[in-house]
Amino acid sequence: MLNMRNKPVILAEQVQTSLAELAPLTQKVFLSLTPPTSMDNRADVDQVRQRLERSHGSVSVPLELMSKIPKICRSAGWQVTATLADIGCGWKLIDLEPGDTSGEQLGLAIDIGTTTVVVYLIDLGSGAVLGHAADYNGQISMGEDILNRIRHAAEPDGLRQLQNAVLDTINQLIRILCPLPMETNKITAAAIGANTTMIHLLLGLDPASICRAPYTPTVNNPGLIPAGEIGIDIHSLAPVYCLPSVGSYIGGDVIGGILVSGMHQQPDISLFVDIGTNGEIVLGNEDWLVACAGAAGPALEGGVTTFGMRAEPGAVDHVSINPKTGWVKYSTIGNLPARGICGSGLVDTLAGLFLGGFINRTARFQNGKSEFVVVPAHEAAAGEDIIISQVDINNFMATKGAVNAATDLLMENVGCPWQDISRFYAAGAFGQYLPIESAVTIGLYPDLPRSAIVRLGNSSGEAARQVLLSRAKRLEAEAIAEKVTYFELNANAAFMDKFVGSKFLPHTDLQRYPSVNKRLQTQL
Amino acid sequence: MLNMRNKPVILAEQVQTSLAELAPLTQKVFLSLTPPTSMDNRADVDQVRQRLERSHGSVSVPLELMSKIPKICRSAGWQVTATLADIGCGWKLIDLEPGDTSGEQLGLAIDIGTTTVVVYLIDLGSGAVLGHAADYNGQISMGEDILNRIRHAAEPDGLRQLQNAVLDTINQLIRILCPLPMETNKITAAAIGANTTMIHLLLGLDPASICRAPYTPTVNNPGLIPAGEIGIDIHSLAPVYCLPSVGSYIGGDVIGGILVSGMHQQPDISLFVDIGTNGEIVLGNEDWLVACAGAAGPALEGGVTTFGMRAEPGAVDHVSINPKTGWVKYSTIGNLPARGICGSGLVDTLAGLFLGGFINRTARFQNGKSEFVVVPAHEAAAGEDIIISQVDINNFMATKGAVNAATDLLMENVGCPWQDISRFYAAGAFGQYLPIESAVTIGLYPDLPRSAIVRLGNSSGEAARQVLLSRAKRLEAEAIAEKVTYFELNANAAFMDKFVGSKFLPHTDLQRYPSVNKRLQTQL
Repeated sequence: MLNMRNKPVILAEQVQTSLAELAPLTQKVFLSLTPPTSMDNRADVDQVRQRLERSHGSVSVPLELMSKIPKICRSAGWQVTATLADIGCGWKLIDLEPGDTSGEQLGLAIDIGTTTVVVYLIDLGSGAVLGHAADYNGQISMGEDILNRIRHAAEPDGLRQLQNAVLDTINQLIRILCPLPMETNKITAAAIGANTTMIHLLLGLDPASICRAPYTPTVNNPGLIPAGEIGIDIHSLAPVYCLPSVGSYIGGDVIGGILVSGMHQQPDISLFVDIGTNGEIVLGNEDWLVACAGAAGPALEGGVTTFGMRAEPGAVDHVSINPKTGWVKYSTIGNLPARGICGSGLVDTLAGLFLGGFINRTARFQNGKSEFVVVPAHEAAAGEDIIISQVDINNFMATKGAVNAATDLLMENVGCPWQDISRFYAAGAFGQYLPIESAVTIGLYPDLPRSAIVRLGNSSGEAARQVLLSRAKRLEAEAIAEKVTYFELNANAAFMDKFVGSKFLPHTDLQRYPSVNKRLQTQL
Repeated sequence: MLNMRNKPVILAEQVQTSLAELAPLTQKVFLSLTPPTSMDNRADVDQVRQRLERSHGSVSVPLELMSKIPKICRSAGWQVTATLADIGCGWKLIDLEPGDTSGEQLGLAIDIGTTTVVVYLIDLGSGAVLGHAADYNGQISMGEDILNRIRHAAEPDGLRQLQNAVLDTINQLIRILCPLPMETNKITAAAIGANTTMIHLLLGLDPASICRAPYTPTVNNPGLIPAGEIGIDIHSLAPVYCLPSVGSYIGGDVIGGILVSGMHQQPDISLFVDIGTNGEIVLGNEDWLVACAGAAGPALEGGVTTFGMRAEPGAVDHVSINPKTGWVKYSTIGNLPARGICGSGLVDTLAGLFLGGFINRTARFQNGKSEFVVVPAHEAAAGEDIIISQVDINNFMATKGAVNAATDLLMENVGCPWQDISRFYAAGAFGQYLPIESAVTIGLYPDLPRSAIVRLGNSSGEAARQVLLSRAKRLEAEAIAEKVTYFELNANAAFMDKFVGSKFLPHTDLQRYPSVNKRLQTQL
């Protein structure tokens, strides 16, 4: 298991809500049955089903279990525990165990990112996270981003390779969490948060139409699928629920983010931003939700700067620059000699450079400089200076500009002025590790009261946990997916204007950033 | 395909009720879909499901179909036909075809007897029987009756052999009705009427407990099982519904008989009798139903008399004896030279012998005779006299006595006098081909007004057709199964007394047979 600090694997505390009512995808029911007598000689399967139907309504029993029921009941002295799986319109008996095992109910919440996969082992009885494991998505070797994955899927055997790759990643993570094969069989449900392409590749569905007009996926809401049919190595009849998508570019991961944020239940307007390999922006409240999406580039994942790296040991993750002297204080992950700079370190560096006046509002170095040394050669692992160059800054500004432009365009289109935004939700890596003050300083986050800036952590994983545990949350997620209106950025010529005009620090319109403006005044 | 005239393969007309409302196990729905546009780019699977949910409520789509839906929709210009299978609490999409194929909906009604299997091909759109085919149950070589089959199932690999044998029989009959493999895939539902043991063997469930106290089967109501899981060669996801059993000795075939008779909806009391390899008797009305069962012996299937044979070509099927001269008029099946006597011929012969005074009320030959020539040697296929001996008659009387004794005991136990019986239903072979007058004369049928004697034909097959076509009938069958009280004959010492006292023609109590009494007076 890699150290995957760039992917927030610990679910943010503020959103790990305790669900009002636990109604997990699978439920265990202890049954104290009556041994048949000549007076009551109902068939064994019927007795089990009738008892379960008292509490759960319609229950079906698959043929493969029928033959085992008489033996299990008799060997267990008629004290057995049934596992029922939600099949949408009713329940299906998927297991019967001797004795009372109703205290042992395991499920998985899975976040499949284009880059990283995180699997959480969940106690279905309490909702608690018992453990988690993360790794790179095994599909990376077949394409770094979604578009390249879709291209690979079109090659002979490509789709199968991609499906197997992500299944291998998931199944290896399951084995880390549950080393004994006997135990993996006790995992009887799973929920998945992922973008639309990741869901298609996981299910072995052709993703070609996702990137071809009119951008129609094969499926947005796949419903409940038995794990064995997908190839996830848990109980073969375990129901697997995928958070529903809105369409090709707004996937279940974003719907999950909205669900976890609660913005869809608030009268005030919120802005939700998730920036990973792709960026998604959602604006709305309890009455309406509008979303747009686009490639964000790997700026925050360490991919666009000379010394950029993922948030792994040796990455510079916090930086402060003395505005007078330009002296640098920094920390690295694991306190190891610095190997490069990860997203949070980059944002800190840019904020420090800007506040100290080392770069101007157009993000250009002042006084003829063309780079800035963050870590001097003698402190760096490779023995050479770790620097930020003008080119690095320009690359970053492209990502930031795209996010700002998209957000502005979306708001303009909806007719929502900046002043109406009352909350800002930052999801994913973008929302877990970025330093809030620095992110506001360079205009990546809006300049709201800091209490109104909420970092959701891995909201895709947390949403998967919630829908795993709650039928109400599943219905809520489906209602959100129905409600979101997709706003097509690429078809909009105004985007390029906005984009070009957005490459300012913190923003073209400084009035929107009063706290930053104030600090700039103070520094002068 | 054998000529299986001893099994009534044509459903009796009086019970082939036209169902008030067709609600078959699978239903086809033609969909004229909208090609996706940039304004409405819902996912293909979601569009199909949403359209189906408008008419059918909850619909699930299995993963294996999801991947095919985009291609089928596009190649068919968005004009497609969905096949929905009932899964109890909702519907499952099991097929999607190009164009409008909603007029082609096929299902099977299957009657699995211990001896004979009949498969009816049903048009699910109209309910009509398109064809039928019958053959011996391939399990016969592993045991003639239920007890021997259960013994065979206990041997190593025995259960699998029995399951395969009946599946082979069914699948061969399906191929006769539907010679093209492409066509069998168009059969998308099946319903089965059979006794409890036959259902267990078909499903591969251990039948051992059926004949061991407290006589608890594994399952009475198996619900809906996909054909592919059982091994029936039709559409692999076709739902298969088995008529529910009451217990080990009152199976779905009897529940089907009650359903077809309608006795469970009448205020007056009816008597239902089905005599095949086993005999089952049901007494009751809209308020209560009591049933008993026991081995009947093969008296009516040609197994207990010297020249007994099944109702196949060359069997003497109708006999009349001149009471004065003893001269015999007879007919054979297919007008072939006589080879033996089948059940209906035997009943005619006994009635003629009794009415002519050739045998007395204790069924003994008079005037020192010990046999009666039905067909003289020169007319018989084998060139020897076809006779009925005293031993033959005694064997037959044992079966008749057992039926009378069981019926009497059941009625006595319930406290229902003979006068209260207003209708008599005869099911199976017992009800299709036996000559009513002769059957009353020898006391096999009660002496009711002839219009109150209803022959149900293959009520197990007809019930299978009805539950295949109607959800209301399935619920009705399940309600009947819940309502029937089983009366245990074997545990009852009074049975032997009744049995010994029952070996009279037409019955111990002649007052119960006024029309026979009158004819006897006339003959004298």
